[in-house]
Amino acid sequence: MPEFKFFHPIEVRYGDLDPQGHLNNAKYLTYFETGRIKYIVHLGLFDHGQSFLSIGMIMADAHVTFKSAVEYGMNVQVGVRVSRLGNKSMDSHYTIVDADTGEELASGSSVLVAYDYRSGRTIPIPEAWRGKIIQFEGLQV
Amino acid sequence: MPEFKFFHPIEVRYGDLDPQGHLNNAKYLTYFETGRIKYIVHLGLFDHGQSFLSIGMIMADAHVTFKSAVEYGMNVQVGVRVSRLGNKSMDSHYTIVDADTGEELASGSSVLVAYDYRSGRTIPIPEAWRGKIIQFEGLQV
Amino acid sequence: MPEFKFFHPIEVRYGDLDPQGHLNNAKYLTYFETGRIKYIVHLGLFDHGQSFLSIGMIMADAHVTFKSAVEYGMNVQVGVRVSRLGNKSMDSHYTIVDADTGEELASGSSVLVAYDYRSGRTIPIPEAWRGKIIQFEGLQV
Amino acid sequence: MPEFKFFHPIEVRYGDLDPQGHLNNAKYLTYFETGRIKYIVHLGLFDHGQSFLSIGMIMADAHVTFKSAVEYGMNVQVGVRVSRLGNKSMDSHYTIVDADTGEELASGSSVLVAYDYRSGRTIPIPEAWRGKIIQFEGLQV
Repeated sequence: MPEFKFFHPIEVRYGDLDPQGHLNNAKYLTYFETGRIKYIVHLGLFDHGQSFLSIGMIMADAHVTFKSAVEYGMNVQVGVRVSRLGNKSMDSHYTIVDADTGEELASGSSVLVAYDYRSGRTIPIPEAWRGKIIQFEGLQV
Repeated sequence: MPEFKFFHPIEVRYGDLDPQGHLNNAKYLTYFETGRIKYIVHLGLFDHGQSFLSIGMIMADAHVTFKSAVEYGMNVQVGVRVSRLGNKSMDSHYTIVDADTGEELASGSSVLVAYDYRSGRTIPIPEAWRGKIIQFEGLQV
Repeated sequence: MPEFKFFHPIEVRYGDLDPQGHLNNAKYLTYFETGRIKYIVHLGLFDHGQSFLSIGMIMADAHVTFKSAVEYGMNVQVGVRVSRLGNKSMDSHYTIVDADTGEELASGSSVLVAYDYRSGRTIPIPEAWRGKIIQFEGLQV
Repeated sequence: MPEFKFFHPIEVRYGDLDPQGHLNNAKYLTYFETGRIKYIVHLGLFDHGQSFLSIGMIMADAHVTFKSAVEYGMNVQVGVRVSRLGNKSMDSHYTIVDADTGEELASGSSVLVAYDYRSGRTIPIPEAWRGKIIQFEGLQV
């Protein structure tokens, strides 16, 4: 499996837990999203002064595999990588790990599509994104 | 495609939206969950007086396909059906529709596994669940 | 106590609950907000086609008194009323009731300030708002 | 003003923001809660192996004053202190600060009441809590 080059720590909040005492299933997508946006920031593709509309990506598909319950107090990290860049879409993979034990608690993936909010249309992935992601991930073009 | 026999209305809350002004991606899993638990209540499989731990199901897998943005003020319904009952797991499908236009806004699926919280082990799906779900869905056994 | 002229039903979602099995404290503000925005829509002060930025109100203060736990399956309604209109700010009150028993589960208040997002400044409450709220609430001017 | 002896960093998540692009008002209570539970852990009053029901505190009252919008990318810290210990209740205060500039973005307070979930009754604050909080805060008794 290709390795993740980007990890971001996530603090499990009490408010993320549900009546079963574990991380609620919807919050896994929140953790993926938190990591994904930090990845975009890390690659210099998002300027905090900009509107989030400037990111110009919409989600077409998301998948989560739950492996072991995430509990309060765990030292959690989310890993993010982009595995494929198409013309208008890109595939990302995610992992949620217990940083103390190395155990993978969940994994997942998403498909993002480049989108122009002004015209309301899908567009080719901007060249700036393409270049920085290919370089960071070492993708074959 | 098999049809959904169970639908539940969901009110889109302002707090469900994100800076792009649309339903945040993680909330789709919340909408599926809201529908799923109403389905369980509808089939008489959950007594409100009980602990949620008594439901005894954990999620192993979830998938969402996003088709069209969910916006504030839409008249949204979530459909839930169980498509397969294994020994210890069951597959569910979900649809999120605009009830005014009939348009499907998103679809998805999940795999739930029967679980005994006291012993911390997976268990066969209880017979009460099996019988009621087979009858409601008209599943072939 | 002045009575509430506007009530809106809120469905308690499983995802609103926390490990104590009750409505999480932060969700009370979400319930107030959900009612508040429906109140604004009800008075014809928000057109769904508009941006939420057009609402032009920011919150300066919020207060919640928790009286009795909100549980899953309860038939909950939130009441909203505006009790005071100043030049630039308005005071609202909220109640969360069990519609089956009439019991008040929580109450609260907020101070909202009219705000122009383009200039980043507080502004006088628009006359359209002032007129409709005074009429709806029967406020003395 | 008495100073805060306990601060905890909070990462602003994209999912915490609302269509106005700022931290949603309900999330301030989530940030207070996140800090409050870390405070309890910090004072050795919560063992991660325990049920959250063992904390035995319910919230009676919460108040937030919003001073300046919390934005994505800000380096936020929440401060927590206990200012008064009654027989059965305790008053806490909170501050949310921009750690880079020192600016206070919000402040707030809560009243918590000691509660026995088994009997469903309020109880005196446990002596272990009383002792550790008095010592940590330097409260006059």
